[in-house]
Amino acid sequence: MSKTFVFGHRNPDTDAIASAIVMAHLESQLSPDAQIEAVALGDPSSETRYALEHFGIVAPRVIETARPDAEQVILVDHNERQQSVRDIDEVVITKVVDHHRIANFETSAPLWFRAEPLGCTCTILWRMYDENDVPIPADLAGLMASAIISDTLLLRSPTTTEYDRRAASDLAGRAGIDLQRYGTDLLRAGTDVGDLSATELIDRDAKSYTMGSTTVRVAQINTVGTGPLLARRDEFLAAMKAEAQQAGYGLFLLLITDVLEVDSDLLVVGEPLEAVEKALGVSVHDGHASAPGIVSRKKQVVPQLTEALREN
Amino acid sequence: MSKTFVFGHRNPDTDAIASAIVMAHLESQLSPDAQIEAVALGDPSSETRYALEHFGIVAPRVIETARPDAEQVILVDHNERQQSVRDIDEVVITKVVDHHRIANFETSAPLWFRAEPLGCTCTILWRMYDENDVPIPADLAGLMASAIISDTLLLRSPTTTEYDRRAASDLAGRAGIDLQRYGTDLLRAGTDVGDLSATELIDRDAKSYTMGSTTVRVAQINTVGTGPLLARRDEFLAAMKAEAQQAGYGLFLLLITDVLEVDSDLLVVGEPLEAVEKALGVSVHDGHASAPGIVSRKKQVVPQLTEALREN
Repeated sequence: MSKTFVFGHRNPDTDAIASAIVMAHLESQLSPDAQIEAVALGDPSSETRYALEHFGIVAPRVIETARPDAEQVILVDHNERQQSVRDIDEVVITKVVDHHRIANFETSAPLWFRAEPLGCTCTILWRMYDENDVPIPADLAGLMASAIISDTLLLRSPTTTEYDRRAASDLAGRAGIDLQRYGTDLLRAGTDVGDLSATELIDRDAKSYTMGSTTVRVAQINTVGTGPLLARRDEFLAAMKAEAQQAGYGLFLLLITDVLEVDSDLLVVGEPLEAVEKALGVSVHDGHASAPGIVSRKKQVVPQLTEALREN
Repeated sequence: MSKTFVFGHRNPDTDAIASAIVMAHLESQLSPDAQIEAVALGDPSSETRYALEHFGIVAPRVIETARPDAEQVILVDHNERQQSVRDIDEVVITKVVDHHRIANFETSAPLWFRAEPLGCTCTILWRMYDENDVPIPADLAGLMASAIISDTLLLRSPTTTEYDRRAASDLAGRAGIDLQRYGTDLLRAGTDVGDLSATELIDRDAKSYTMGSTTVRVAQINTVGTGPLLARRDEFLAAMKAEAQQAGYGLFLLLITDVLEVDSDLLVVGEPLEAVEKALGVSVHDGHASAPGIVSRKKQVVPQLTEALREN
């Protein structure tokens, strides 16, 4: 039997990296003979590195293509083709575990597909360990708690469900961490923009979507206090415009999110601008809008924009 | 809260009808306040009627559109848009439980989606009752066993998994039936072609697929002893040609399956014929081919044909 790769989306966040490591562990427990390896479609962010180092876990190696090493893949934390590995159409997808919308996904044969509208893929995996009576090792529990903290902004994002709360509490106990204290440290670690250029920052956590006939890019930068980043607005807008032109994005949105205030500022380039304003209930002036309370790309931006651009 | 409809695919088979009734029951148990109704996208077949009457269950009413009665829908035993309700694009899909490939399915928001490559949707539902600690009433257990018998040809189709075997045995016990005896009676009831015309017969259990640029129709007729139906070959081929022309099917395949022998004969109209021959490993002469061992549209026809027509 050939090897199976498990990986999350491009520009991986903590849930994408954690879910791959955790799913590979669970699969290995359920099928001891299978050759399963967690890999990544990009380097871990400063937040993810903080979590990996805290729990003594090695970052998965970064791959460019699944083949020739693997003929089969398991997708976690994504399902849309354009967010996946470059040669996704040449391998067999055997399983998917995800908490996003389903789009641009097609198989020729039946497969395992489990999507649940929860705050974090690691919450679904937490349920799967329980259903299969597999114990969760302490280090992986810490990594899973980190993913939930990251995706739900310490259980304060509107994406947070009762399952996420129960999972976070249970996992923190197994990992021996104080959820609030460790969570605040983790989120702060993720706001380290170092001396990164605007181009590097808008690429770090960005996803592409096909909405109607428009390709839409939605990037997000987490920070504490949006002032310093907003002062670089023109630099961001220029970088977004250049990238949109090069990659063919009709719209490019950047959410600058204060992870402690749970609020965002929005930068936008491209058209149709009215659709963005209407979909998100904001007013864009010179490429900028306040977006109070909007922190979830998945729940508060993508569905609304998809609806608005459906007939486009 | 508006009403939620639960339904299986068009031209419903026993699993499509049973899954809808059973999923509506499970959902009602888990959310007692929700307004949930099982409906159908077509009349039950003679096989399904046999099962419903045997266990004293009323057939779900047939709907043409989900709206205005329901704004939300739960899909069972299908996910492809062209197999679903006519106004599927105007309602919100909240959940899907299915055992088919995933294709032509897209949502703007996250949802519950559970697909498993098992022989029958009712086997997945059997697992869900267990996971949620909800007891299965005897009459529904009988209906679920009927769906498994129907989809797996009494556990002899190559789609049959260990889960289907365990579910069938457990459900037969709950329903108080002898699986072999009841199963043979049920399958025989499904082979009653009465005095139906060829056009009626090729419509009874037929599904449409988009494969590459070709729309493919695959129909199946279950029988005991294929002789009488094969004697009507020219009548079937003419009906298939007429329907393909009218509906724009590039290919129309009809499997005439002996449910006790677990073998099929294949009738084909349309192009490319070589792709069909290569994909299924058969030789077509005058629109007919022997297809020994081929009984599963889902596992032995659709994936192979999808691959063959991918570049088409």
